[in-house]
Amino acid sequence: MAIRVGIVGGTGYTGVELLRLLARHPEVELKAITSRGDAGKPVADMFPSLRGHVGLAFSDPAQAGLDECDAVFFATPNGIAMQQVPALLDAGVKVIDLAADFRLKDATDWGKWYGMSHACPHLLEQAVYGLPEVNREQIRTARLVANPGCYPTAVQLGFIPLIEAGVVDLGGLIADAKSGVSGAGRKAEVHTLFAEASDNFKAYGVGGHRHLPEIRQGLSAVASRDVGLTFVPHLTPLIRGIHATLYARLNAECADLQSLYEQRYANERFVDVLPSGSHPETRSVRASNMCRIAVHRPQGGDTVVVLSVIDNLVKGAAGQAVQNLNLMFGFDESCGLELVPVLP
Amino acid sequence: MAIRVGIVGGTGYTGVELLRLLARHPEVELKAITSRGDAGKPVADMFPSLRGHVGLAFSDPAQAGLDECDAVFFATPNGIAMQQVPALLDAGVKVIDLAADFRLKDATDWGKWYGMSHACPHLLEQAVYGLPEVNREQIRTARLVANPGCYPTAVQLGFIPLIEAGVVDLGGLIADAKSGVSGAGRKAEVHTLFAEASDNFKAYGVGGHRHLPEIRQGLSAVASRDVGLTFVPHLTPLIRGIHATLYARLNAECADLQSLYEQRYANERFVDVLPSGSHPETRSVRASNMCRIAVHRPQGGDTVVVLSVIDNLVKGAAGQAVQNLNLMFGFDESCGLELVPVLP
Amino acid sequence: MAIRVGIVGGTGYTGVELLRLLARHPEVELKAITSRGDAGKPVADMFPSLRGHVGLAFSDPAQAGLDECDAVFFATPNGIAMQQVPALLDAGVKVIDLAADFRLKDATDWGKWYGMSHACPHLLEQAVYGLPEVNREQIRTARLVANPGCYPTAVQLGFIPLIEAGVVDLGGLIADAKSGVSGAGRKAEVHTLFAEASDNFKAYGVGGHRHLPEIRQGLSAVASRDVGLTFVPHLTPLIRGIHATLYARLNAECADLQSLYEQRYANERFVDVLPSGSHPETRSVRASNMCRIAVHRPQGGDTVVVLSVIDNLVKGAAGQAVQNLNLMFGFDESCGLELVPVLP
Amino acid sequence: MAIRVGIVGGTGYTGVELLRLLARHPEVELKAITSRGDAGKPVADMFPSLRGHVGLAFSDPAQAGLDECDAVFFATPNGIAMQQVPALLDAGVKVIDLAADFRLKDATDWGKWYGMSHACPHLLEQAVYGLPEVNREQIRTARLVANPGCYPTAVQLGFIPLIEAGVVDLGGLIADAKSGVSGAGRKAEVHTLFAEASDNFKAYGVGGHRHLPEIRQGLSAVASRDVGLTFVPHLTPLIRGIHATLYARLNAECADLQSLYEQRYANERFVDVLPSGSHPETRSVRASNMCRIAVHRPQGGDTVVVLSVIDNLVKGAAGQAVQNLNLMFGFDESCGLELVPVLP
Repeated sequence: MAIRVGIVGGTGYTGVELLRLLARHPEVELKAITSRGDAGKPVADMFPSLRGHVGLAFSDPAQAGLDECDAVFFATPNGIAMQQVPALLDAGVKVIDLAADFRLKDATDWGKWYGMSHACPHLLEQAVYGLPEVNREQIRTARLVANPGCYPTAVQLGFIPLIEAGVVDLGGLIADAKSGVSGAGRKAEVHTLFAEASDNFKAYGVGGHRHLPEIRQGLSAVASRDVGLTFVPHLTPLIRGIHATLYARLNAECADLQSLYEQRYANERFVDVLPSGSHPETRSVRASNMCRIAVHRPQGGDTVVVLSVIDNLVKGAAGQAVQNLNLMFGFDESCGLELVPVLP
Repeated sequence: MAIRVGIVGGTGYTGVELLRLLARHPEVELKAITSRGDAGKPVADMFPSLRGHVGLAFSDPAQAGLDECDAVFFATPNGIAMQQVPALLDAGVKVIDLAADFRLKDATDWGKWYGMSHACPHLLEQAVYGLPEVNREQIRTARLVANPGCYPTAVQLGFIPLIEAGVVDLGGLIADAKSGVSGAGRKAEVHTLFAEASDNFKAYGVGGHRHLPEIRQGLSAVASRDVGLTFVPHLTPLIRGIHATLYARLNAECADLQSLYEQRYANERFVDVLPSGSHPETRSVRASNMCRIAVHRPQGGDTVVVLSVIDNLVKGAAGQAVQNLNLMFGFDESCGLELVPVLP
Repeated sequence: MAIRVGIVGGTGYTGVELLRLLARHPEVELKAITSRGDAGKPVADMFPSLRGHVGLAFSDPAQAGLDECDAVFFATPNGIAMQQVPALLDAGVKVIDLAADFRLKDATDWGKWYGMSHACPHLLEQAVYGLPEVNREQIRTARLVANPGCYPTAVQLGFIPLIEAGVVDLGGLIADAKSGVSGAGRKAEVHTLFAEASDNFKAYGVGGHRHLPEIRQGLSAVASRDVGLTFVPHLTPLIRGIHATLYARLNAECADLQSLYEQRYANERFVDVLPSGSHPETRSVRASNMCRIAVHRPQGGDTVVVLSVIDNLVKGAAGQAVQNLNLMFGFDESCGLELVPVLP
Repeated sequence: MAIRVGIVGGTGYTGVELLRLLARHPEVELKAITSRGDAGKPVADMFPSLRGHVGLAFSDPAQAGLDECDAVFFATPNGIAMQQVPALLDAGVKVIDLAADFRLKDATDWGKWYGMSHACPHLLEQAVYGLPEVNREQIRTARLVANPGCYPTAVQLGFIPLIEAGVVDLGGLIADAKSGVSGAGRKAEVHTLFAEASDNFKAYGVGGHRHLPEIRQGLSAVASRDVGLTFVPHLTPLIRGIHATLYARLNAECADLQSLYEQRYANERFVDVLPSGSHPETRSVRASNMCRIAVHRPQGGDTVVVLSVIDNLVKGAAGQAVQNLNLMFGFDESCGLELVPVLP
């Protein structure tokens, strides 16, 4: 029998992507999608792509009956989930938060980066960081999963083999990351208008981006010590896709970087290590839950270059959330996620 | 037991799209994909999006064993299928041609528009034009299906209800159609380079496009008389998508155009008539087999405006071909085609 | 000595385009650019492309000293200019309004389409519609010019030769027009976000667009009788550019459409009739004040197809406004407008 | 009196961009544009954007009378200029090569990277590397200028102040560069088709790109010692624009990076150092000869991040070539280059 699933905040891009995936998920019954502003409006009126696939209307959060669900996804702006999660957990509902509310372990740090006090700091320890390639076993038994950010997913999956192997200088990691514009969400803002973002390329947040502490926390956990990271995000005129270009300095002999990566991810369904010399394209994972990675050592020098691509809305958000759901409820990990990337 | 399927010419966009769809089709076993130039090369080396989904390598046409298949798709340039189809039919193989070789009934006309003599004019009569919404029953028993062109699919589905109802002037139909660039194929040409086709819009082929006689033939068959059509195709900077804007002059009373369209397509799984006043977007069908249509009568005048959108690679090519396969082999018509459009 | 010029509302796309053009105009001294919300902010802080070219800061409208200017451009939302123009005219300032406030001659009609009462209906008669190819002499002596809309410019320039020659059915003109997204302005709105408008194509306003009465008024004036027009605008993923595809039915003999167009525009600096058989591209006029036109008669039938392209921000807005300024002040008509289109 | 100028190879993007600039250059008379394949064809037939601005037809190289020109630009594929330059120099013609033939000082190195023997290695020493911000005085008296590559321009201008100041570790420089697709030229190739390059992002040439030795040579000359550089180019879906993100490790105290950059470029007309904290956008230099730079020191650490943007066809090719021409002939350095960037 299918589990009952609710979505809080279904009008953004991660929301509609969750709907695209869950509409075809054989173990899931969609019970409610909430939107305070659009309550009563059929979901398919806002997103005609879902006509014939999603029959629900948006419901008011208060009337949605979320506490009768088996699982609830939060696809809300930061700061909303932390208000509602404690009650849902108390009602026995499992929660996957696609926002940032439970990603950092330190409440003070969280407050500093997100500009507000955390509403339930006691849950930060309990929340499991939902990167299955690192925390699979804890996710299986988690009641609350903090779904990773899009950049952190691409960057961590790219660096992890090097860090676990202990072969690079942990003081000077560099992550130069490029994101499609859907990563900025479906809010009406000038800088993400077509006429602003098309035929244009720029860096942003060089002084400090909220994904920096999240990546640093994740990599430091893997390294069992603090890592030094420079993280520069860029906006590039794609709808979907993140391309992370990672730089690290080798400080120990590593005979075969290619094997290191292939072995680390040999059993991972959603991480694909490309053959030596490859350059993964973002479109090769478009609309799928895959992360593709290539590792290079240019000119045989001591700088390693790792290329890591994901679809920011799938492996970087909704797809990874479904992957976590599958783990939490004992379904096959790829259930509902066997998507062939859309190319061209 | 799955049927055995071969694809001739798998290196273009319709080829890779067929692979995307057939890789997840539960009733199909892919036996061979041919490419003279790339024989021996794993398909997934050319299209990394298919890694983990398609294990085949391209094979030489002569060694591919196509005559042992149950069905063969031709995703080749015009003029290839007509050379090979007779032998395959003789071997009992059912054929679906995604090129134009069997779309026109008149061999002389075909020769004029395609610039070569037809190699098997005797098959033109036998070939069934594969537009299921018109020819469903003939397709079920066809041995050879001529899969419609992309523009002809969008334009015909938009005009058919008006023509069947006999309410418009058949002498002055206008189809102003806009296509994404993938419609031009994966050939290396200057005019479809990114730096030429991006941030640019143009008409082409105003003097005469090969899809004109195909549309005229189809609409004339529906009308049981010759129709006069002006067809102007345009290139627009999308990857996928066709938007046809159709104009016709009412010459009889039609109380309710909206009902006319809704009733005509009430039982069609892949034609979706939008509510009155709608404007379908190409992205609302992206990567799916759906055609969405809206009908307008601006200012209550006697000009009807019909808006019809498809994904040129799916309903306009590979998806419709799979829909035809399903009909020819008695599978559910939507088998392998239950795709939720990818938005954004 | 240069004339003193002010711009009201300099933060939108027509505003920044005016600045791009006027910064290099040898007869113009920019005195003030107003913006209520951004008063005090250097213009080049908002538009870094103007660093080194425009040294002004935005000023508050009340302090801008507009009444000491020789000419003032309004690049404001509809409904603003009509509040301020009477006082400026009284102060002897010449005004060019790039919004729609003075485009329609009938105040009732204006009120119906723009949803508000007109603040100075008595000026509607006096205002000169600023399409130099039609109204050049009146513009020279005008105190108030209503700069045409972007669609109306492309559509009227395309239809005028046919209508003046009296060779087409005036009851059934069709204008299928496609615009780049900058035409929607620089307001933060969801439907013009990159992730909404990119890789997407749609019609809008089929039931009735504000440019319909403007085009109808202009063509009716040329025809000296009412014309029947169906106008369907579309949004296409370009930043700049309009492509109008126009359809008309010949109802009189016209031996040589090509000559008709070439002769009509022989002395027009900013209308370029392409050789017979051409398909103008929007990029061929990008960032320039040119309109390029081609005329076709497909299959020798009685339907004429005219293709007309402009840059919506230049000939469709700021460039045409400067052209009008040149006429009003006796400068060479192309002064400051000798721009080579940017291709690719 | 204007100088007579010829262009060899005018059918690519750097060729048409040279024409756009030279058509409005007050000191230049265009005498000849050669193209073996298109001799006799009016230039404006291939590039309608130049209608009314360039009246020349392409001429056969043999009949072009290039030796009667004062200056000749080569906008040819690599390996062509070196065949023809010696004769032109002997005839007293000054030459600016926009290809790579004269960029490297070491003929062996050149042969290794470009896969052919150099035809006139004796000219490599004499050729002046045409980066005016470094070699202005030598350019003034040069007979042969090697116009820099697009990536090398953006990367060198970004690193130079740090290197001249001696404040960074020269062993581990990293240049992560992103280019628009016009950088790949106007050749018909599959990977630069719209349907391949749009909505896609990828790195390429990580193992070794031809601009690596050029950048290394330039930076080493500035440093007076060998520098270690990792250079990773990426293809991003823009038509024009390069964004270089540069990383260097501080190894000496530098109190004020912002002042360092501002002072270095205080007198440079075409390098604009943005205020502290800025993020330059590629569109802020679109269609202009400007390079805009911002320097950051994230979190006050010892990693410096420099952001440098140019239009690859202007400051990265044709514009810089005209800047060099101006220097070689004693014109004002910005003559013909006072272009306001096109935004949006």
